[in-house]
Amino acid sequence: MKPILIAIAGGTASGKTTVVDEIINHFQSEDVAVICQDNYYKLQDDIPLEARRKINYDHPNSFDLDLLYEDLSKLIEGQTIYCPVYDFKEHNRKKYETKEINSTKVIILEGIMALYDARIRSLSDILIYVESDPDIRFIRRLKRDIHERGRDLDSVIMQYLSTVKPMYDEYIAPTKRYADIIIPNDTKHDVAIEILAAKIKDILK
Amino acid sequence: MKPILIAIAGGTASGKTTVVDEIINHFQSEDVAVICQDNYYKLQDDIPLEARRKINYDHPNSFDLDLLYEDLSKLIEGQTIYCPVYDFKEHNRKKYETKEINSTKVIILEGIMALYDARIRSLSDILIYVESDPDIRFIRRLKRDIHERGRDLDSVIMQYLSTVKPMYDEYIAPTKRYADIIIPNDTKHDVAIEILAAKIKDILK
Repeated sequence: MKPILIAIAGGTASGKTTVVDEIINHFQSEDVAVICQDNYYKLQDDIPLEARRKINYDHPNSFDLDLLYEDLSKLIEGQTIYCPVYDFKEHNRKKYETKEINSTKVIILEGIMALYDARIRSLSDILIYVESDPDIRFIRRLKRDIHERGRDLDSVIMQYLSTVKPMYDEYIAPTKRYADIIIPNDTKHDVAIEILAAKIKDILK
Repeated sequence: MKPILIAIAGGTASGKTTVVDEIINHFQSEDVAVICQDNYYKLQDDIPLEARRKINYDHPNSFDLDLLYEDLSKLIEGQTIYCPVYDFKEHNRKKYETKEINSTKVIILEGIMALYDARIRSLSDILIYVESDPDIRFIRRLKRDIHERGRDLDSVIMQYLSTVKPMYDEYIAPTKRYADIIIPNDTKHDVAIEILAAKIKDILK
């Protein structure tokens, strides 16, 4: 039985993780593996920390999509992978740490560019785009960056306007058209999740 | 067993009927009833034909949403309804014709305003919005109006710009936020339909 690959994309703070968590709740934990695209930021050993800080991490070129594609292919073929772990403080892949991920019945890829790469799209069984209003997304990101990441207001706004938003408009929003379904992430998406879970269970049977 | 009501909205020529047909294909014909909101345009016996021609049929007030709500409620309670039949040439409800619709396991409401009325939304189990690019929708409508309805280019453009588009922007597009899932109607939506069908079958079991 080939595993099912579900790719879930959407802008920053659009609610991708909430959707992933709600899908997981419908299954036994040993049946689902979640791959966060954030762990596939490029290895940057050859770039000094100061320069790494200035990189545009909202551009598709910041991701090692070749490795991501390879790893997803392996999981689908039933192999175990050793997923890189990204260190956001160091802006680099961790040197001595990987995460062992076994092939499971359901594999979920979650990330802003999950629908960006044509190879990954064709590998996926279900393509999902989580859509939220841009102001709501900004407010969520602002809260998260200030409270959880200790950033200040001005730096959050500056980063949002200089890279997050333009890269969203240029590279993320256009991938919405590849989605099989779009989930509007306003107050509730229980029906959407139930619909998805029914299909996944149907495939698993 | 209470019937399942699925409401499917979207702009003119967005592909609502295609989505409905594809859902129907997954079920026995006796298990599904389709209600076209177009049949619920208001009774206009008291308005002369000339005046009826000039009515803005893209405005929610042109629909008899009370009757539609009543009829859907009856179907859900297991009753048979006698759905009005609309005569588009006369711009009025047919006098001596109704359509008998029996209560079935799956009831589909299809129409531009299917997500507009709060009572109808709360009656529905699954709210779907079919989304297509506006230029594609215009081109489809243009072809249909010219080839199937014998209209000329100028009148199609005039109607589109004077009522269809502004009413879409004001009353239809905002209902997208009520959708449980949005189906992007570009080239294919087989996965979306399969996901939906799995959920419906799951409820029916």
